[in-house]
Order: sequence, then C-alpha cells, then structure tokens
Amino acid sequence: MKKNNSVSISVIKRLPKYFRYLNTIADKGIVRVSSKELSEITGLTASQIRQDLNHYGCFGQQGYGYNVRELIDELANILGINRQYSVILVGFGNLGRALYNYQGFRNSGYSFKAIFDRKPEIIEGIEKDVEVFPADHLKEYLKRHKIDIAILAIPKENAQDVCDTLCEGNIKGIWNFVPDDLKTKNNVVLENVHLDESLFTLTYFMNNPNDFNFRD
Amino acid sequence: MKKNNSVSISVIKRLPKYFRYLNTIADKGIVRVSSKELSEITGLTASQIRQDLNHYGCFGQQGYGYNVRELIDELANILGINRQYSVILVGFGNLGRALYNYQGFRNSGYSFKAIFDRKPEIIEGIEKDVEVFPADHLKEYLKRHKIDIAILAIPKENAQDVCDTLCEGNIKGIWNFVPDDLKTKNNVVLENVHLDESLFTLTYFMNNPNDFNFRD
Repeated sequence: MKKNNSVSISVIKRLPKYFRYLNTIADKGIVRVSSKELSEITGLTASQIRQDLNHYGCFGQQGYGYNVRELIDELANILGINRQYSVILVGFGNLGRALYNYQGFRNSGYSFKAIFDRKPEIIEGIEKDVEVFPADHLKEYLKRHKIDIAILAIPKENAQDVCDTLCEGNIKGIWNFVPDDLKTKNNVVLENVHLDESLFTLTYFMNNPNDFNFRD
Repeated sequence: MKKNNSVSISVIKRLPKYFRYLNTIADKGIVRVSSKELSEITGLTASQIRQDLNHYGCFGQQGYGYNVRELIDELANILGINRQYSVILVGFGNLGRALYNYQGFRNSGYSFKAIFDRKPEIIEGIEKDVEVFPADHLKEYLKRHKIDIAILAIPKENAQDVCDTLCEGNIKGIWNFVPDDLKTKNNVVLENVHLDESLFTLTYFMNNPNDFNFRD
C-alpha cells in the first residue's frame, strides 16, 4: 500500500463508509464493482471515489472496475481493521455496558482485557468475561499490561485525569465517549463520539430543514 | 436570529462545540468572553469563530467580546435545544438502554413517550418509566401520537422498513445508531451515529499517526 501525502480528514472519514458499502455488496455475492456503481450506492461522484481510493494506491481496472473482495482487504489493511487490538473499558455504566456488548467489537480483532470502574462492587452479577478493577488500579495495570485501545465512558468530571493516566500508560488510542475535549499526549490518538453534539445537530436540522437538504 | 444562506455543514458541526465550551466557562462563573479567548479554548482561529457566529447574527462587541449567557441562549435557540421534543426509542437492546438512560436526554427538553422492541416481554423487570410496545405496534402508535424524534437502535436487518414506517408516521427526525445508510422521506431529518466508522477511524489514525497530527 502506497499512500500519497496530504490526505484530508474528509477522505479518511469516507474510507469506513466504502468499507461498509463494499461488505454489503460482497454479502450479496457481487464480485466486482465499478466506481460508477459505487457512485450510485454512495451518492458520491465516481471521480471522487476513484480519487479517494487512488490516494491509497487502490486502482480500479479500466473496463473492469474493482474486485470487491480485494478492495475490502485493501481497505481493511488501510483502516487497520485486520489487526488484533487489546482493549480496556474505563467506565461500566449504561453506555460502557452497551459498548462492552457492541457487536462491532465482538466480531473482529478487538479483544477486551479488563474493565475499570469507580465502583467495581456494583458490577458484580452483571455478565462479563473479563476481570473488573477499581478505577484507581488503572495506572498499575497499565505498567504490567500492553494495551492498545482504551474506551472511555465515564462522567466528565475527572476524565482528563484518567486520560492522562492512559497516555502515560503507553496505550495507542482512546475511543472517547466523554462529552468533553480531552487532551492527549505521547502521540496517543483520540477519537471522539460526542453524542450530545450529534443530538444537537439533529435538532438543528429539524429546525433548519433547508440546511439539511443542502448539506454537503 | 437572522441567518445568512449557504451555511456549510462544517459550520453547523461547530455550533454544538461552541455551545459546550460556553457552558463550561459559564459554569466557572465567566460572564464575558472574546473570540480570542474562545480561540485559545477551541483551537480554532478567532476570525473563524467570529465568522461562524456572524452567520447566525451573533455579533460580539468590539472591546467587550460576547456575553457568555446571551451567546449560550442564542446558540440554544439556533440549535433548537430550548424546545420540547417528544421522543420514542425503537430497539431496547444494550445500546437502546444506554440511550434511554443517557443524561443528555434526562436534563433537557427531550421527553420519552414510548419504547418499541421486537420482544417487549424480555424487557419486563428492567427499570423504565414509559410503556413498552411490540415493534409491530409502531405504525398504529404513530397514527395516534405526535412524535418529534425517533431513536433507532435496532439491528441492520429490517432497519429501512422501520425507517419507512417512521417517515410515514409524521415524525421530524431520526437519531440513527444502525450501522447502515437509511433513506428518509417526507423531509424527515436523519442524523447518524455510526460507531463502527468511528472505531475504524481510530484504528486508521493509530496505524497512520502522521495523518492524525496533520488532520484538519
């Protein structure tokens, strides 16, 4: 995989979509697809799609298009989905539990190693197949275990402190569900799911329907 | 509130962020803020912030900046947060339960009216304060009740059918957690939370750290 420089966040954000579309058509038994066909499914222009995929060295063949299976494999590789990740979950409230049971994790290379919660005692009795530790064991735990991803699903109050502990504990990425802008260090990657912002975007468009029709 | 035309999705997506930042500083007792100070908190340029807010007729005062409380109220109005919304939840699995208990809902003008699930009998015994109906009652229910927002947290399989029922049932917006691209009609607004895409974006950046540092 050869990648050009200066790839924009918009391109990157489209890659998981392509991956999803391609898996959907692969499930239907489709073995090849043209950028024109992808354009019809995605609503993006064929030229945009070709350009996005060219960025990552995925070139279709004139008159043939893309081999669906090969393109899925290439995208899985680009997105890093075809690797194994060790994961811890910090915060086992309602959302944490939902994420723990999230099928997207269950069916892929993400492997839960531990759960941390301020009140591990209240978690007893809930179905789970990894050990639960008190939140203040996090620092020690990270000294002894190599963890790739931490899912952060705790209240806002001391989220930055926990984030600091994670960054000092040699993790690589944080999937953050805390409604706050956390600062990471040591090159730890941060990906936010800000549910409140998404909900407000919904109500914005409900109140400004014209903007919804003309959104880009 | 007067709004200029041709507001881009990027501007709209920043509004909830401004709203959040402003609430954070209001909680600290800060009563006025300059675009320069907002710039330091948000990482956006002061000129970008002024331009975004000007779009919506929110003008700061030279030498004073913005009154924090007033700007929060204006943004709440623009985002439609200061209104009442009747909400139904479709799908009461792990994620549905987490969303049902989501504090962002609990503290604001969103009022849950009903829950729908394919297997309402398995929900018995779970704490909730609204009625639970079998999924196939949805169409009839929407004929008799005026609902603004439906939260969709069901598996992908027949999500488009449910989406069609919602759109024909005169709702105004769908907050979609199904990992699929649903098509709405009758001007129903759709806002997606695609957890799988977010997770793949995280692993992408973990595997392409240079792109993370230079993301726009």
